[in-house]
Amino acid sequence: MTLKVAVAGASGYAGGELLRLLSSHPEVEIGALTAGGNAGSALGQHHPHLTPLAGRTLEETTAAKLAGHDVVFLALPHGQSAEIAEQLGDDVTVIDCGADFRLVDAEAWVEFYGGKHAGHWPYGLPELPGQRDKLRGANRVAVPGCYPTVSTLALLPAVQNNIVDPGQLVVVAVSGTSGAGKGPKPHLMGAEVMGSATAYGVGGVHRHTPEIEQNLAPQTDQPVSVSFTPVLAPMARGILATCSAPVTDGTTADALRQSYEDAYADEPFVHVLPDGQWPQTQATLGANTVQLQVTLDQRTGRAVIVAAMDNLTKGTAGGAVQCMNLATGLDETLALPLIGVAP
Amino acid sequence: MTLKVAVAGASGYAGGELLRLLSSHPEVEIGALTAGGNAGSALGQHHPHLTPLAGRTLEETTAAKLAGHDVVFLALPHGQSAEIAEQLGDDVTVIDCGADFRLVDAEAWVEFYGGKHAGHWPYGLPELPGQRDKLRGANRVAVPGCYPTVSTLALLPAVQNNIVDPGQLVVVAVSGTSGAGKGPKPHLMGAEVMGSATAYGVGGVHRHTPEIEQNLAPQTDQPVSVSFTPVLAPMARGILATCSAPVTDGTTADALRQSYEDAYADEPFVHVLPDGQWPQTQATLGANTVQLQVTLDQRTGRAVIVAAMDNLTKGTAGGAVQCMNLATGLDETLALPLIGVAP
Amino acid sequence: MTLKVAVAGASGYAGGELLRLLSSHPEVEIGALTAGGNAGSALGQHHPHLTPLAGRTLEETTAAKLAGHDVVFLALPHGQSAEIAEQLGDDVTVIDCGADFRLVDAEAWVEFYGGKHAGHWPYGLPELPGQRDKLRGANRVAVPGCYPTVSTLALLPAVQNNIVDPGQLVVVAVSGTSGAGKGPKPHLMGAEVMGSATAYGVGGVHRHTPEIEQNLAPQTDQPVSVSFTPVLAPMARGILATCSAPVTDGTTADALRQSYEDAYADEPFVHVLPDGQWPQTQATLGANTVQLQVTLDQRTGRAVIVAAMDNLTKGTAGGAVQCMNLATGLDETLALPLIGVAP
Amino acid sequence: MTLKVAVAGASGYAGGELLRLLSSHPEVEIGALTAGGNAGSALGQHHPHLTPLAGRTLEETTAAKLAGHDVVFLALPHGQSAEIAEQLGDDVTVIDCGADFRLVDAEAWVEFYGGKHAGHWPYGLPELPGQRDKLRGANRVAVPGCYPTVSTLALLPAVQNNIVDPGQLVVVAVSGTSGAGKGPKPHLMGAEVMGSATAYGVGGVHRHTPEIEQNLAPQTDQPVSVSFTPVLAPMARGILATCSAPVTDGTTADALRQSYEDAYADEPFVHVLPDGQWPQTQATLGANTVQLQVTLDQRTGRAVIVAAMDNLTKGTAGGAVQCMNLATGLDETLALPLIGVAP
Repeated sequence: MTLKVAVAGASGYAGGELLRLLSSHPEVEIGALTAGGNAGSALGQHHPHLTPLAGRTLEETTAAKLAGHDVVFLALPHGQSAEIAEQLGDDVTVIDCGADFRLVDAEAWVEFYGGKHAGHWPYGLPELPGQRDKLRGANRVAVPGCYPTVSTLALLPAVQNNIVDPGQLVVVAVSGTSGAGKGPKPHLMGAEVMGSATAYGVGGVHRHTPEIEQNLAPQTDQPVSVSFTPVLAPMARGILATCSAPVTDGTTADALRQSYEDAYADEPFVHVLPDGQWPQTQATLGANTVQLQVTLDQRTGRAVIVAAMDNLTKGTAGGAVQCMNLATGLDETLALPLIGVAP
Repeated sequence: MTLKVAVAGASGYAGGELLRLLSSHPEVEIGALTAGGNAGSALGQHHPHLTPLAGRTLEETTAAKLAGHDVVFLALPHGQSAEIAEQLGDDVTVIDCGADFRLVDAEAWVEFYGGKHAGHWPYGLPELPGQRDKLRGANRVAVPGCYPTVSTLALLPAVQNNIVDPGQLVVVAVSGTSGAGKGPKPHLMGAEVMGSATAYGVGGVHRHTPEIEQNLAPQTDQPVSVSFTPVLAPMARGILATCSAPVTDGTTADALRQSYEDAYADEPFVHVLPDGQWPQTQATLGANTVQLQVTLDQRTGRAVIVAAMDNLTKGTAGGAVQCMNLATGLDETLALPLIGVAP
Repeated sequence: MTLKVAVAGASGYAGGELLRLLSSHPEVEIGALTAGGNAGSALGQHHPHLTPLAGRTLEETTAAKLAGHDVVFLALPHGQSAEIAEQLGDDVTVIDCGADFRLVDAEAWVEFYGGKHAGHWPYGLPELPGQRDKLRGANRVAVPGCYPTVSTLALLPAVQNNIVDPGQLVVVAVSGTSGAGKGPKPHLMGAEVMGSATAYGVGGVHRHTPEIEQNLAPQTDQPVSVSFTPVLAPMARGILATCSAPVTDGTTADALRQSYEDAYADEPFVHVLPDGQWPQTQATLGANTVQLQVTLDQRTGRAVIVAAMDNLTKGTAGGAVQCMNLATGLDETLALPLIGVAP
Repeated sequence: MTLKVAVAGASGYAGGELLRLLSSHPEVEIGALTAGGNAGSALGQHHPHLTPLAGRTLEETTAAKLAGHDVVFLALPHGQSAEIAEQLGDDVTVIDCGADFRLVDAEAWVEFYGGKHAGHWPYGLPELPGQRDKLRGANRVAVPGCYPTVSTLALLPAVQNNIVDPGQLVVVAVSGTSGAGKGPKPHLMGAEVMGSATAYGVGGVHRHTPEIEQNLAPQTDQPVSVSFTPVLAPMARGILATCSAPVTDGTTADALRQSYEDAYADEPFVHVLPDGQWPQTQATLGANTVQLQVTLDQRTGRAVIVAAMDNLTKGTAGGAVQCMNLATGLDETLALPLIGVAP
């Protein structure tokens, strides 16, 4: 089987990472590459690392250009996916890397994104209980946000097994600046971010907050509440999420750890590190992996889970390709590196 | 008044930063500069930035070399201050940048540092209630750890005013790598830390945990518990501490913010930023300042406080000079920059 | 004497660095702070590190706002200084950090900058032979570009003493990204520059090329030619210039080195490092210093000189304050740090 | 064909990168992994990114452990390869990533490395004229140093075609710090290198100097002389080499550029970028590619060539795998990424 695949939004970071991964996919033929303002220019101007595709010219993002492909990846600004998607037939598998179809709750959408809620598609996190089956054969997939992917995977086993109080989850996630996209903004300039760390979207106002809660709520019959603070650090890629919550009475460190090992024993992309070894984002650079470690703070009675992931790979484009593999009946792990580029 | 000042451990990061600040101090004459293994070499080999002092030769750290100064700064590895200090007379003001005399509780010392507890000295955080007076005229001062300084200042007003539950404090602090000292360790090599974030000392085992609790406990009649996780980020200097705790019933965002503005209105080195502006470590680089912002997460009912500070300046050497100024009767702010080097 | 000083272009990097230095200047009172598009906003929004001035409001850059000051610093985009300057009387000392009045040769101006040549002012590099005297009492000063400052100082003694062939000078200068200014451009975004080095303006087309040649040409009776390549490195500040040229017959390593030690023996801000110690930009961070080292490559017969400098301090704002000190009759070194912020 | 492959020195950076590439090689089965001081520990402790191999235990580096493999990669400190290699039979293909067998000239070896010259093996740079054929079927290969690889490829067409004076070659190469290896040295600590650039091995004393000359000398009948200066920049990986030389009379910009396009038209891993686009190291991160651009500086009459490469991939481990592919009769490009991980 060879899938003809188009990428809309190919000049952005998500688009570039999709093309990096798809270029080595044995069952993929890369078709149309489209863009908004960058249409007409060569791909290599925007992504000089995509050597074999550098000479390709970006076309304008229209449904007509995207039709006729087996799979269309949308890597567009929020709010632009719906219009394109509804013009693509059900025979086209559409994988949306944007936020438009992630949230089930229309009110939450309006509160955090504003504008009209486009609806929701099967959520592209195969590691969620029952979700893998829903993604098999799906022709529409909403790829999760990067913070929700790593935060959900970090908290899932503890919440699912009632090991922690899900009403007191705290996540502080340190991220590289590519997560904020490629549009030139003053606070993301090199001279501003190098040598500096800063928090943003503090106080529950970051758009990924309701998505994390949406993922965890079905795993427990208790109320779920996540205090989420993202921190920008001077690196291009990578998220390190430090998560904690009070453990329920009688929880032992062993039981806590065992719940993680059990939960992810068969997951190809989620790795609980050997006891005592803590994740570092560098180890996941360019890989589709999440590395986890967990401990019980005996002084405070809190479980502390730390997770590392590449925001552009497993957090965006790698997760999207994983969903494509599932949706099209391929081996879920095809073309997804397990090994990061370190140091 | 001109103080003759010696620095023991002058070849390390704390020593270098002390000399940077002391070089522009109008009431200081720099005397002996001593070191351990680096004794006999030129200061400029270790600190090429200390241009005016670069030709000075490091002497061996002994009480004899340090005696005869008005002030002696100790920037030694943990466990080495006590022996030196007891050989220096009461007429010498000793400012210890190490941990030896920070903890009041001997058991906590043994648990977190091991070995014999050397005792405790007046704690060099003038911003703690009542502490400034205790430092005036003191001839022994224990300079706080960098994480305790920033974490304590970030949490103090909320704890002091019973605005948060002090039993559920969570601190995740992102730090530059200079905080780990100058000794060459594999995990602190440039290629390991650049482009990477990693947590360490997770689960309440970092030595600064009891120190934060020691600072906050006297401010409230409720039990204090701090879940503290340090994260290494790819920058040389700076700490960004993200702190949170559940607010007590009826707390408003305004009351929360007001408590911070009131607490620090007269503090020369602690600045609550204008509403909506979040701290970045770069703004404090080389300055003796802490920048703070606070918000109330209405969804989770948690106060979130973010604080930025330079670990080597206000977090170590600047804090130490501030203590020297107080201890010797000088203006507390002498020779302490308010303005960071940014970008 | 207290000078009333205005800064035009206060929201940019040069403006911010000027204010950092001027804030600690004992003879300066900071007056009007003006900006273009940022007029009306608080200084602290753009420069959160300028704590004591953070609440100041930026006014619009007009001659009227700038008049009535003893000294006006212009930190404006190229081409905007002339119009402002001609409206300021001769009683106002105008220090231009832009390029408008640097080049003597109108043709070179047109070739490299385009547009009309505004003329030329006394060139603000006091270390050039005879230049210090020309700056004393000057009421107009053109502050050099950052690359020309460091490159000229690195090559001056060798050219001046006919130790090298000035027709074969090669300079490769690695720079932090703040040198490119604060305007958000795609290739200067954090994610683009972190972890990456790239050359730009290659092949003699960088605007600083004729300025370096203009500085060196008067020092020799031979033709001067500089091959200049700037390289962007992942750091906010700092320039490391590697310069080389064939030595003239019979030149010894000792004579080469001696020429540098002699040339800069009395210069307060140019430091030849001890033999064998090579400059690093970190040592000059925030300081008004240039650090130099020189060697003779016996295999190739080339002198190799390496110089480190902070592009924003000695390379722009520090150099400008140095010029102000000279122009207004103050001690040349006032308010100019000799010690960098390292590590 | 499946090759059984061993890696000696698996815990270092070259070893880790070899294993990253070999893990995805379709014709390779990874056999013994050996180390010096790290023998006995798990590979994952040293290379947490090598997820699928993380549980493997490092054995001691001995000829006995390495025998019985089809291919043995040596990634050992200089001076240790000879003893191991001579104990491995001719039926074992030995690919040495160290310097021991790179230099033909025994005197140059003694001058730059000291100690006894071990001899020389077929030099593993297939892009050198005639070299590809010598590597096919070779059972001993000396992999080039990282600086020689990128410098040679940057200068080769110009030297080969007599377009430049090979007696006046100047190379300034900016490198990430992983090139200096994994041993913890004070000047390579994160806090020392972040935010800083520094030159080292200045004046023709870097060990890679004679290797560059050795590569270029046979391409011309004129004397070859290279002034080589390496500069450490704050990044983990990547080399950006800026090379220049006076062009011969009558050379045009077009002829210069054409010589590069012609030389590398059929090379799978060397890419001349479109006119006007300059290389950046990020685009080659983790890829086996070299990106080049060339221009003629009309003012100075010098050709300027800039080349970007990943020092650990094409500069070490990727080059080594390329050599293995050639030596064992496989497709030269197997398992070697063309696409870097950017941003």
